Amino acid sequence: MYPTLRPTSQLDRQAALRTDADALAALWRAPDTRCLLLVGGKPVIVSDAARTSSAIRWVSVPDASGMLFDLGLTVPDPQHLAALFLGLEDGTRSAQFALALPPVDAAHSHPLLTPAVDLRSLATQGVLSPGDVSLLGLAKSLADWHGSYGHCAKCGTATASTEGGWRRDCPSCQSASYPRTDPCVIMLISDGDRCIVTREPRFPENMYSLPAGYIEPGEDIEHAVIRETHEELGIRVHDVTYKRSQPWPFPHSLMIGCFATTIETTLKRDPAEIDDARWVTRDELLAMVNNQHPEGIWVPGLHAIANSLIRDWLAATS
Amino acid sequence: MYPTLRPTSQLDRQAALRTDADALAALWRAPDTRCLLLVGGKPVIVSDAARTSSAIRWVSVPDASGMLFDLGLTVPDPQHLAALFLGLEDGTRSAQFALALPPVDAAHSHPLLTPAVDLRSLATQGVLSPGDVSLLGLAKSLADWHGSYGHCAKCGTATASTEGGWRRDCPSCQSASYPRTDPCVIMLISDGDRCIVTREPRFPENMYSLPAGYIEPGEDIEHAVIRETHEELGIRVHDVTYKRSQPWPFPHSLMIGCFATTIETTLKRDPAEIDDARWVTRDELLAMVNNQHPEGIWVPGLHAIANSLIRDWLAATS
Repeated sequence: MYPTLRPTSQLDRQAALRTDADALAALWRAPDTRCLLLVGGKPVIVSDAARTSSAIRWVSVPDASGMLFDLGLTVPDPQHLAALFLGLEDGTRSAQFALALPPVDAAHSHPLLTPAVDLRSLATQGVLSPGDVSLLGLAKSLADWHGSYGHCAKCGTATASTEGGWRRDCPSCQSASYPRTDPCVIMLISDGDRCIVTREPRFPENMYSLPAGYIEPGEDIEHAVIRETHEELGIRVHDVTYKRSQPWPFPHSLMIGCFATTIETTLKRDPAEIDDARWVTRDELLAMVNNQHPEGIWVPGLHAIANSLIRDWLAATS
Repeated sequence: MYPTLRPTSQLDRQAALRTDADALAALWRAPDTRCLLLVGGKPVIVSDAARTSSAIRWVSVPDASGMLFDLGLTVPDPQHLAALFLGLEDGTRSAQFALALPPVDAAHSHPLLTPAVDLRSLATQGVLSPGDVSLLGLAKSLADWHGSYGHCAKCGTATASTEGGWRRDCPSCQSASYPRTDPCVIMLISDGDRCIVTREPRFPENMYSLPAGYIEPGEDIEHAVIRETHEELGIRVHDVTYKRSQPWPFPHSLMIGCFATTIETTLKRDPAEIDDARWVTRDELLAMVNNQHPEGIWVPGLHAIANSLIRDWLAATS
């Protein structure tokens, strides 16, 4: 029915369908259409008995509607699509929607809604496929946007979701608003033999990552790397090189990963942003990646771009 | 007083000062502090007699305050900093602020406010230094954000500027909001010998540029290039490579420029997005850059990342 698009993903977003209300309504009624559920922002999953492997719990539209009715929640109106249109699954070409539910208390719980598990924990544990993580990240970004941006920033009036959840319209000043994505830089800074790892106050105990920060208005990627590194660590970097990027749905960032070089090895960290910053050798970093560092310090897992950048650097210097 | 930071720019943003109200107030009173003015979003400039060279018209705080008083406009309160703190000029270490004024009608005009000229026109004409364009782009991005995002997106209450104009706070739900930057991809797509130029309906007559589009939630840079190219031109690309980036303050984008390759040479353009799309040879593109194409078609000038990407490609294939 619709051509397959992205070989690197499970999802073909079919953006043109978002503005076609009839097509969206037809997809909503199609028997093979499936919904994923977010409850208070947490995705509902199914797991194997040993809980070593999990997946999105897909629910049919009739089952989802019945569950919402049982709970006394509003059934999504296919014309106004309170449901979020994600796209078509590659291969099957079945439509995929996300339904974002408020937190449901235990008394109103429903078998289709358990377990709902924090996405960051799921990603950290590595129990979901990369495709499921990616799809849940998209759904969570969109749902969080609706949850936090429900009013017109221009005039303050409550806005309404349209275009399958990809746009909100103001009934008063007619402004349209679109999902927000904040570009951030994250950088692996090397002096040739060593690189810098940093700890932010909010990190789990003993975890270190790479320095990062938001790109500001009027900056390009390279300038943001230079400025952020100077602000957080008091050093100048050069030879900024783009390596890879990754969406990060906590809540809605695009992480842009770069390498950079410095000859200034004395770090003057900003104590408001950074608890600790240190130079680590290749061997130390490898031990951190493998959870074998003698001090018990470690780095984020495969779900995080910091891990990929660290592996890029270890591979390049091995 | 503060260390110099960015050799590639005229501005050291000194982000840490934004949260230091006393330091900002002291800078506001400092005799060497200067303001640039935006009137209805247009920067006020000075030009030489032949109008071939222009620059930001810098105004002292006393002169700016006097002008505002003459016009009956509110004088910025240094404690609440209705003025936008840009940073410190490299070299002199003088503070630079921007004052965003509403459109001023002719009857209330003032010598310090003329001429106010559209920034895009100034950039297109190439009459400003790159440093001035960059600074005005930052000022315009920040000012537009205050103009369009004056209400809390979460609860709708009118918000107040703080941190030197880098944050707005909601007095009702206490949400903080920060300037928005939308990441976009722009791509030079080649089949080896030729590349694709496209025309959007909003472009000036006979101008072609490179295809571009917003990065969506849940996408990385490379996926966005693949999806956008498929949506707009109906072809698949591979070997997506980051080349360079540029802030684009119309109104608040970060343009991320990539090269990509395709073997699919039959274009199926989306008529809603693209008026025309064509393959051009190296020689045709060079003629377009130099305004010597026999059909009179041309590409954006040096101010635009499309021009830089085109020159990158011409240099790489020459």
